[in-house]
Parts: sequence; C-alpha cells; structure tokens
Amino acid sequence: MPIEQQVMSNVRAERVRRVAELANRKHREKNSQFLIEGPQAVREALTWQPQIVRDVYVSADGDEPDSPISTATLGKLAAQAMRENIYVHKMTRDVEHKMSKDAQGIIAVADLRACRERLERVPQTPHPFIAAFWQVRDPGNAGTVIRSADAAGCDMVILVGDCVDVFNPKVIRSTTGSLFHLPVLTLSEDEFFELCHEKKTSIIAADVYGTQKLPPVSLPELERDRQLLAGGKAVLFGNEARGLETGLLDECDMVVSIPIYGKAESLNLATSASVMLMSIAMSSRVETMESR
Amino acid sequence: MPIEQQVMSNVRAERVRRVAELANRKHREKNSQFLIEGPQAVREALTWQPQIVRDVYVSADGDEPDSPISTATLGKLAAQAMRENIYVHKMTRDVEHKMSKDAQGIIAVADLRACRERLERVPQTPHPFIAAFWQVRDPGNAGTVIRSADAAGCDMVILVGDCVDVFNPKVIRSTTGSLFHLPVLTLSEDEFFELCHEKKTSIIAADVYGTQKLPPVSLPELERDRQLLAGGKAVLFGNEARGLETGLLDECDMVVSIPIYGKAESLNLATSASVMLMSIAMSSRVETMESR
Repeated sequence: MPIEQQVMSNVRAERVRRVAELANRKHREKNSQFLIEGPQAVREALTWQPQIVRDVYVSADGDEPDSPISTATLGKLAAQAMRENIYVHKMTRDVEHKMSKDAQGIIAVADLRACRERLERVPQTPHPFIAAFWQVRDPGNAGTVIRSADAAGCDMVILVGDCVDVFNPKVIRSTTGSLFHLPVLTLSEDEFFELCHEKKTSIIAADVYGTQKLPPVSLPELERDRQLLAGGKAVLFGNEARGLETGLLDECDMVVSIPIYGKAESLNLATSASVMLMSIAMSSRVETMESR
Repeated sequence: MPIEQQVMSNVRAERVRRVAELANRKHREKNSQFLIEGPQAVREALTWQPQIVRDVYVSADGDEPDSPISTATLGKLAAQAMRENIYVHKMTRDVEHKMSKDAQGIIAVADLRACRERLERVPQTPHPFIAAFWQVRDPGNAGTVIRSADAAGCDMVILVGDCVDVFNPKVIRSTTGSLFHLPVLTLSEDEFFELCHEKKTSIIAADVYGTQKLPPVSLPELERDRQLLAGGKAVLFGNEARGLETGLLDECDMVVSIPIYGKAESLNLATSASVMLMSIAMSSRVETMESR
C-alpha cells in the first residue's frame, strides 16, 4: 500500500542523515529509533514485531554485484511491509551506503521505546531457562549469543552489568533476527540475582576455574542432574577476556565448565555459550520426555 | 641465543617485503613459507612444532597503546624461541604493520613443506574421531572449526573439496594455535570417503534436511546410540551458505541435525560444528566410562 514511488537519490537529504545517525547510541536514544539492517533481520522484525517498524528502505538498484540477496527477496520484504501498512521507500545504492554499510539492499527504522518495552517484559513461565551474559562488550559476540540462546529455547536473555547496547546495529545484525523472538533484559548484577531468586532458578556460572568455595563441575555431570534440569535455571557467562569475577561466582549455586579433550586451551565466549546452552536444552528435554 | 641486536626499521627492506608477501598463497607455495601472527598462535607453534619455525619477529616498541599484549609476554616468547635456536629479530612498529596488520607485536615465519608433512600424517588411532568440512570458504570459519575439533578431542580434521587454504594467515590466527595440535588434511570428496572406509568409521552428515533416503536423526538420539559412539566416526559439515549436496549426503551412513527449540531459524557453521562435535565427544566419553 503506502509506497513512495519517487526514488530517494539525494545523499545529503535530511532523512538520509537522520537514518545514518542511528549508528550512534546518543541519536538512537534521543530520537527513540533504531536501525535494522539486512534482509534476515528485517524479515524477522516484520514477521514477529511489525508494529514497531516505522519505515522500510529498499534498494531500487537491484542486486549488488556480489550480493547473495536477490531482487525477488527484497521485493517480497517490501510487499510484506506494505501489507502491514509500513511506509516503504526506494533508494539508490549511494543513499543505501550513506545510511548503512551492511544493509544488503534493505534497512528498516523501528521504534526503540516500543521495542524495549517488549524486550523487557519478563515472561511468566513457571520454570524459566535463562541465558545471562556479564559485561559482554563485543557487538558481534552479543548478537551471536542471543541467537544461540534463542536456538536453545531460552525463555529470556539477560545482559548483566556494563554490556554493549542491544540496539547497536551490529548486535541486531548478529542476532539474525533473534532480538525479535525473545525478551532481552539489561540488568545490574544485583537486579539479576534478585530476579533469579524471585523466579527460584538455580544459578549456574559457566567458568573454567571456579572458586575455592565452588570448584567447577563438568558439563556432562550437570547433564546427568535430573532434579536440577527439571527446574528453572539461569546460566551466567563472563566477559570475553576476563571471565567472571570471584565475587559473582560465589553468588551462584554452582560453577560448570566445558571439558576440553584435545590440546586447545579454551573455547571463546560464543562457542562456550552455544555448547553449554544447547547441551542443557537437549538434556532437559530428554529428561522431561523420560520422566513423563 | 641468536638474536639480532639491530632493530629492523626499514619498511622497504627486501626481508620485510618477503614476509608481507606471505599473505598471498602463490608466494607461500613458491617460497615454502607461511606466516604465524600474534602471541597465541606463535606460542603454540613454538611449543608443539618448534622445528618448523624459521624466524621470529618481535616488536621493539613495547606495548601497543590499546593492546592487551604486554612486553613481558613478547619477551617470554622471544626467550622461548631463542632456547629452540630460532632467529629472533627486533622490529619497529612500522615494520610490523608492513609485514602484518594483525601481529599484536609478534610474527613467526615457518616452513610450509615441513608443517604440511606433519599436518598430513594420518594418525593410526584404532577408532578415530574425525571432523570433516566440505567447501568451507571463509578463513575465520575454517580456523574456528579447527579449534572446536581440537577442543572436542578429534584425532584429525579433513578439509574436503574446494576449501580455503589452511596456510592463509587468517585461518591460522582463528585456530589460535590448534593447527599445531592435530593433523589437518585437505582431500577430495572421493579421497575423504575412501579414507573413512579404510578406517571403518561411521560417516555422519551434519544437515538439517537430510534426503529422502536419509531423513535426519536428532542429535540427542545420536547421543544415545552407544554402539555407534563406541566406534570410529567422521562428522561431515557442509558449506557456510549451501550446506551439503544431496549426492554427498547419500554417501554418508546417517544424517544428524541439531534440534532448534526456539524461533531461531538455524545455527551458523561454527556454532553447529562446536555443538555437534562437543556433544558427540562428551557422550562418547561418558559411554566409554560407563561401559568399563
């Protein structure tokens, strides 16, 4: 329905500048808007939360020379947006590149406050499965771990302490749309522990070393703990470089480490999170099936 | 012992040009040399395969302003190289940046033929655990999956068909040294299947869809297959974008998929490989312990 027939071609236009500025947190907060780049993230936003999407910008120049994204894909997304009564604008490649370097032909601008309000809705699941990340700083890592938590069927993600902004476009791109699938809260350390106590979840720290009080249990051991797996559980992962602080570890109920069988020293955050969350998810489901 | 006291400072020197050229495959093959960048990969090469390392270049300018790598770390690595009678050269930051953009203060040049000869030694383990990757094209992905295979205790990695060159500096950096821990072969499709038949391993394709002949089995189901886990096994992963071709799938013994519990569409190659390989490793070890 509402499509601007005129192709946006002026890279100096006010509108173009305003969209480009959303790469910056200050502008996102001030205008209560954020950027969604690329066909996959835009499709998931349109599918799961169309009401937050304000405008969609589609390349009028057809396929990028080396792009895996076809004009047909972009056309379908534009049609989907129009069915939701979202404004669709056509743009030249120059305008696209001015707005975003990673758009692959399509950009959406969405309402930040409306999205945050949905993201922060704590689900009322009786025994929630929570993935929590303390001081995750790299946007690519943050996005990837949100995607892994989604795949593992987590009920919510909590970014604990001083983490990267979830509305950073690179975070959103790396989630490949998972940000529109499940609640993602940003909480202080105290708020995180309070929520876990309130929800009566076990708090499992993912850490190689543990503390004197809490030496690490191996992941396969955790997978055999039927009682723990049957209940609510929050898994807390540490910062990419520094892991978790002793003070935080000691507030958890147990420390779990992934066994390393070869000569590799360790796994990185994204790998650890996917292995730990998927293993717990698979074991919990198997336990549930068997105990029926 | 052999350390050049003079600091290399001429960015136009023949030696600097030759090291920088190793970013290019043609030059690597012609000179039978390759680059190892950064403290972690250099340390693993010096620890596990010192005999292949020819020269080590260390920054004489101390810490990079934002670098997490301390001068002490670099000094220790230089000392380790000298104990192995490897030539250590000091260089200015300009020379370092000319040789490599990702060195973090230290670069090694190693003998390609000697390394390849070691990489291609097929281990004589009776029931090998093999990780195989078909047409993996992205250097970062290739490195990450080699690291995951190492962590899972695989006996070897096989790059099948038209894959990225393992001596690409970005592959080596992403392995964080795992390239020096286990054999990594590059084989054609036919050679891969021949080797598996010769080693009598089950061939497990990691794929979401499977084929008409081989519909996918879920990973938790595979984890309960004691007989299969007790024997040799090769897990074959597909290309980042296209997965595995039907022809290849049908040559495998079974197709296994990772269950997705949330709304995420899929996992990427690196995540799938780490989840699948670590799950199989953990289940195999548990089975072995229990059957004792």
